[in-house]
Amino acid sequence: MSDPRLVRAIRGEPQARPPVWFMRQAGRILPEYRALRAEAGSFMNLAYNPKMAAEVSLQPTRRFPMDAAIIFADILLLPDALGQKVWFEAGEGPRLGDMPSIEAMQEKVETANEHLACIGETVSRVRAELEPDRAVIGFAGGPWTVATYMLKGRGGDREEARRYAFAQPEELDRLLTVLVEATARYMAMQVQAGAQALQIFESWAELLPEDVFERLVTRPHAAIVRRLRELGVAVPVIGFPRGAASLADEYAAGAGVDVVGLDVTASAALGRRLQQTVAIQGALDPLLLRAGGPALDARIDRLIEQWGGGRYIFNLGHGVLPDTPIENVARAVARVTGR
Amino acid sequence: MSDPRLVRAIRGEPQARPPVWFMRQAGRILPEYRALRAEAGSFMNLAYNPKMAAEVSLQPTRRFPMDAAIIFADILLLPDALGQKVWFEAGEGPRLGDMPSIEAMQEKVETANEHLACIGETVSRVRAELEPDRAVIGFAGGPWTVATYMLKGRGGDREEARRYAFAQPEELDRLLTVLVEATARYMAMQVQAGAQALQIFESWAELLPEDVFERLVTRPHAAIVRRLRELGVAVPVIGFPRGAASLADEYAAGAGVDVVGLDVTASAALGRRLQQTVAIQGALDPLLLRAGGPALDARIDRLIEQWGGGRYIFNLGHGVLPDTPIENVARAVARVTGR
Repeated sequence: MSDPRLVRAIRGEPQARPPVWFMRQAGRILPEYRALRAEAGSFMNLAYNPKMAAEVSLQPTRRFPMDAAIIFADILLLPDALGQKVWFEAGEGPRLGDMPSIEAMQEKVETANEHLACIGETVSRVRAELEPDRAVIGFAGGPWTVATYMLKGRGGDREEARRYAFAQPEELDRLLTVLVEATARYMAMQVQAGAQALQIFESWAELLPEDVFERLVTRPHAAIVRRLRELGVAVPVIGFPRGAASLADEYAAGAGVDVVGLDVTASAALGRRLQQTVAIQGALDPLLLRAGGPALDARIDRLIEQWGGGRYIFNLGHGVLPDTPIENVARAVARVTGR
Repeated sequence: MSDPRLVRAIRGEPQARPPVWFMRQAGRILPEYRALRAEAGSFMNLAYNPKMAAEVSLQPTRRFPMDAAIIFADILLLPDALGQKVWFEAGEGPRLGDMPSIEAMQEKVETANEHLACIGETVSRVRAELEPDRAVIGFAGGPWTVATYMLKGRGGDREEARRYAFAQPEELDRLLTVLVEATARYMAMQVQAGAQALQIFESWAELLPEDVFERLVTRPHAAIVRRLRELGVAVPVIGFPRGAASLADEYAAGAGVDVVGLDVTASAALGRRLQQTVAIQGALDPLLLRAGGPALDARIDRLIEQWGGGRYIFNLGHGVLPDTPIENVARAVARVTGR
């Protein structure tokens, strides 16, 4: 059986059209998601319940002819597995308990995948139900992004984390090293369970100078990819350093990923330059998807025109906004797929 | 008498070291500023008082061997001059009254410089007191950035402004057209009063797709530069589209500015590419200036090493943070100037 379209496109096999999926395609815009979320009682209950999480992952693929389902989970499941308790306050986002010592977390790296086994089961369930030409994407947070939550105990103030990066470089590097190893093992487990591509979500890659970006983002990603290959993982890895389009050339050259995710600010020229060495993914503005109309159609056509001649996965430059009309998602996917 | 070092460097005359100044070098980090600010009673009183504003502009040049003084003013003086009242709430930033109609503001464009005459007087006073080798820089806000404040009535939520850009493109374009003309006249007046370089602060250039960035940022800047030249202004123009390093190539090619300001994320390669056609300015991380120490020294050396061979103005990638130790500013300026 041949690989899904998304995987073939990443490998560079010519496609009649780019594969398409959307970050946060599973989630609040769908009433069937909101119903399951209410049933689960809490976000963590939903993420840790393989049957429900698989259903949430599959929901958008039933409505739209997406070329991939991404596993419904959260980047903070990993610190939870390393012993830093995570929960979600209604309307306020994630909260984390005290961060364990580096040594305590190092010990947990060996057994974290037991805690995360239910995510593997979610992957298996999605893979079993999804059509063969559609890919299952596993994911984890980038170590720097996850570290910003772990250090702060919540989301929000990344300036504080960046200050920490300047003030306590050695402690931060030790934390990143633990996260790299745990992330690689977690992603390898997802592939064993059936994931056919992996994405590293480095959501807070913005506002970093070149040398700091290399230390906090590019090198840890390269280490994850290297560990994945050592662990026998052969599937393509998508790296998404959000907010770092200005350092995408350096990232593509150093991170060892197969695909570079681009945010909304990526220029046509940047994408074409990157396509000489890697595949690219992105970069439709979620605000435009939300706005819809002829401007959305025109931008979709433009993105395909400028990048469709090379290795390109159509996607957003950030996640679907919660108040996006479902019909706009349908319209956009139809525009790309012709269906 | 020869031009100041900053102007000669922009023209490409070889310099023993790059000229240096810092965005927000005049302001809260200096106790002598805080004293004057308290005496003035309000931010607007200070900005509209030529004697005090000139003093504030000159304060950092007395402490540090900066190569330029930037006029102490605010980007919101222009909407104030166009009939949209502006004031500052303590600890909360700017507030703006109802936005007048486009027609009402168009009528005011002719007379706005009368309202802003005191800023011209500030420029004259600074030019009269500053040593000839140090430049006086005038400035205005970028039309898009100013428009985001005018539409919203305050700072903060740029997502709302970006939504507006998609939802009401024609109204926004009309507003930008008025702002372009008013900005060019205002800047020309500053040059008549003695400014030897001009900077366009486009503080909210981030998160815009390439086509939207061209419409909201590059083209209005090009129109300002064109109008300035029509008005007989020959001084160099620095364009600073903050957060848009990933679109800096396109900006440099289209905006017609002499210098492109770079934020902290600009790569060495990007700067060198730009230096083939324009001068560049930036891009030290204000967080690193605040942190100080050997890491600051090393980064300064690196920036000069990577860009000092071409047309380069040493500066920050954003403004000086209010809690930056004064000794760090002194240390950084000394590192660049050797004094």
